[in-house]
Amino acid sequence: MRAATSAGSVSQDPADLTAARADRSGWPSPAPPAVVVRAAGVDDVCAVLRLAHEYRVPVVPRGAGTGLAGGAVAGPGELVLSLERMNRIRELSPADMIAVVEPGVRAAELDQAAAAHGLRYAPDPASLDISTLGGNIATNAGGLRCAKYGVTREAVLGLDVVLPGGELLRTGRRTVKGVTGYDLTALLVGSEGTLGVVVAAALRLQPIPPGQPATIAAYFRDAHAAAAAAGAVLAAGVTPALLELLDARFLAALDAWRGTDLRARGQALLLAQTDGAGAAADADRLAAAIREHATVVEISTDPASADELLAARRLALPAIERLGRPLIEDVAVPRSRLADMVEAIARIGERHDVVVATLAHAADGNLHPIFVVDPAEAVAGTGIGGAELDATAGDPGAPQVPEAVWRAADEVFTTALEMGGTLTGEHGVGLLKRRWVAAELGDGSVDLQRRLRAVFDPRGILNRGKVLPDPANTAAV
Amino acid sequence: MRAATSAGSVSQDPADLTAARADRSGWPSPAPPAVVVRAAGVDDVCAVLRLAHEYRVPVVPRGAGTGLAGGAVAGPGELVLSLERMNRIRELSPADMIAVVEPGVRAAELDQAAAAHGLRYAPDPASLDISTLGGNIATNAGGLRCAKYGVTREAVLGLDVVLPGGELLRTGRRTVKGVTGYDLTALLVGSEGTLGVVVAAALRLQPIPPGQPATIAAYFRDAHAAAAAAGAVLAAGVTPALLELLDARFLAALDAWRGTDLRARGQALLLAQTDGAGAAADADRLAAAIREHATVVEISTDPASADELLAARRLALPAIERLGRPLIEDVAVPRSRLADMVEAIARIGERHDVVVATLAHAADGNLHPIFVVDPAEAVAGTGIGGAELDATAGDPGAPQVPEAVWRAADEVFTTALEMGGTLTGEHGVGLLKRRWVAAELGDGSVDLQRRLRAVFDPRGILNRGKVLPDPANTAAV
Repeated sequence: MRAATSAGSVSQDPADLTAARADRSGWPSPAPPAVVVRAAGVDDVCAVLRLAHEYRVPVVPRGAGTGLAGGAVAGPGELVLSLERMNRIRELSPADMIAVVEPGVRAAELDQAAAAHGLRYAPDPASLDISTLGGNIATNAGGLRCAKYGVTREAVLGLDVVLPGGELLRTGRRTVKGVTGYDLTALLVGSEGTLGVVVAAALRLQPIPPGQPATIAAYFRDAHAAAAAAGAVLAAGVTPALLELLDARFLAALDAWRGTDLRARGQALLLAQTDGAGAAADADRLAAAIREHATVVEISTDPASADELLAARRLALPAIERLGRPLIEDVAVPRSRLADMVEAIARIGERHDVVVATLAHAADGNLHPIFVVDPAEAVAGTGIGGAELDATAGDPGAPQVPEAVWRAADEVFTTALEMGGTLTGEHGVGLLKRRWVAAELGDGSVDLQRRLRAVFDPRGILNRGKVLPDPANTAAV
Repeated sequence: MRAATSAGSVSQDPADLTAARADRSGWPSPAPPAVVVRAAGVDDVCAVLRLAHEYRVPVVPRGAGTGLAGGAVAGPGELVLSLERMNRIRELSPADMIAVVEPGVRAAELDQAAAAHGLRYAPDPASLDISTLGGNIATNAGGLRCAKYGVTREAVLGLDVVLPGGELLRTGRRTVKGVTGYDLTALLVGSEGTLGVVVAAALRLQPIPPGQPATIAAYFRDAHAAAAAAGAVLAAGVTPALLELLDARFLAALDAWRGTDLRARGQALLLAQTDGAGAAADADRLAAAIREHATVVEISTDPASADELLAARRLALPAIERLGRPLIEDVAVPRSRLADMVEAIARIGERHDVVVATLAHAADGNLHPIFVVDPAEAVAGTGIGGAELDATAGDPGAPQVPEAVWRAADEVFTTALEMGGTLTGEHGVGLLKRRWVAAELGDGSVDLQRRLRAVFDPRGILNRGKVLPDPANTAAV
């Protein structure tokens, strides 16, 4: 393997191996992988996948390791293929309004490079400073402004992908439209590294909206009223560039940390932004739609005070992290069920006596219930998924999620599905959610998806045991 | 088969069989199919596909037959599965901003039903009054406003699809976001009826933009200058709701038909619309961007005069049809190559001495070169694809495209591919373009796509010989 990856590097350094056990979900694999290969270019990726296919070596593709579902977590016997060093913006064409990037580029880096030309990369996951575009593509990452400007899938025009065996597949194109053949690009986006390894992507750029955005902060007596107000915004025909909901738990954490008194204004916060040439007029319509639901409404059209309003959103997660280890969940429901789901999450938290704070991309019906685990409770346990999830994984050194949190999470997922929703709006299935996948998709679809996966990866070497609940594969991790 | 489709109907009426030979490409199959089955519901579709799979009967799914690439054209020995009678809007939920429709519903019907709630269905192919949503989904139809509001793929949240064998597959969901498993919905959109038969679709609705749109008509010394102006619009950061380019040939046809004198203003026309709360401000920026390129610029913000400006676009195709039979082509190029492609098409027309008029969705780089065939030249010939395309197809009754037109079309496709473009932006491959597919996708991708197709349709009964250049299948048509 060393000879085949002369420009890259091969490491069995214990620090590298240990790092590859974990991602930002906080739940490491039971034991370190065998080796970490850092690809320096496409040839390295081809060489690794040719040999891995030949010798049936399980491969875990990995970017910055910031995933929240265990999708890039590697375990015993696995080869970690790191794409972080492939971090060049190969091309940025203002005339075509596209960029061609390697997978290790960060979304924020691309966005900054595009800004020099009055353009931007629209998808803005909260991790945009730290996650790689390869990872964003693998999970079909969303973000704050995606309700108006689209998720990652809508931004990816074409991909260069190395398949198991080492063959390079080119999908899609440099054009905005195109329907020749099947949409392999869309099939690969969100496939969590199970079908092939992305080595380059042609990404669509969009113009930066003109003028100053208008920012609105509105407070409500409870999260249910805030969710109802979000529905009123959409019903009024306004498509906000951003519509974020924070519940009382977040406001309390912010107040406790920063000495503010947000809860004097209400027990839930809705932050909205409108943008473009009609920003001010849209903000007026938005404010009119929510006013009857709100306790306090604040509007800003200058950057400094807007930034102050948005601080609550930016600091929400750090504020919660001061209370304990956050387990960031991710479900989505039909828009009309947002208020019901907000309420259901609170009730589930109470019933299981676990701390859960809810943040939502309210225009999408995408909720992030965040379970806060007291570090004292996160005792030595069974690693990813807990004993209940995967009895084959056993490592006494890994931290354990308290059983009550797992039971509460299980109820959150089940409730989202009952409301016609989904297990994951933008984080992916990875390892942590595979248990519920069949309940959402149905056995027939899971079986079909397994067969499609086998077309790309007949020997099952890529991200084995991730995404689909395949009993034959899960034991390997 | 009759017993299995009690609610539907089975026809061998020669008029029905003959109708199913053709679509709007104007080039019928060499001989009529065996039978037309009109499904009245999901059970009929399941029954037909169960039997067809069992007895290996080739099936051609069909909506309104308005396709432009032969995708719904049926030939000898084939069973036509018509979805036109499945034309109910099953549900329209303003709160969820979605509709659930059967495949036979027209886009315009859905749009009108949504309008009652201040919503609309964004994709607006020129055929929206006559084509079915099933067909729009099969081709991933675009339209005039898709550069701003998305193509069909972006509007489809979930599908109910019957697979060969009769099994019902549910894909996607009712939520705006969702990443559980592979994106089968996106894989099925644009698959031209080769993977399964869509029996229901959950479609995203969008708010109707507030206020009056602003409409701009700008004339230019030639189409090259108009295309350059379109580039200037995008470079100025304006995303128009509509940006249509008509060349001199169209203006001449309109002048000749309607007694106007459009060519006194210029030799090419760019029609633009901006919409939403910032429509007027965006129109000003758009006008400023194009003014230096233009000979005349007209702006309207009232519906009546806007309608007058847009009449040129609405009447463009009828005007051309008065000159002969139009062969409507469809290529897309990277945005920076729009002007080059407009010029290349004109040169190719001159070189082959064929009449070609060009219409473009200029914000997308999507061009429709329209070859005008003198009815006198469209003599008895070989049916779809011409003798050169498929020597096995031979029917003396079908009209023939003059060889010069085929040679010119071949050059148009090759030139688009050389510019980094695609064979088809929104019409699909069908039968007419399969010859060039491997040149765009590469043999490796074609092979992979064949294997994916076989996962859905192992016996190859669905729309056999369409989309992919499969020598083993083409002989059947």
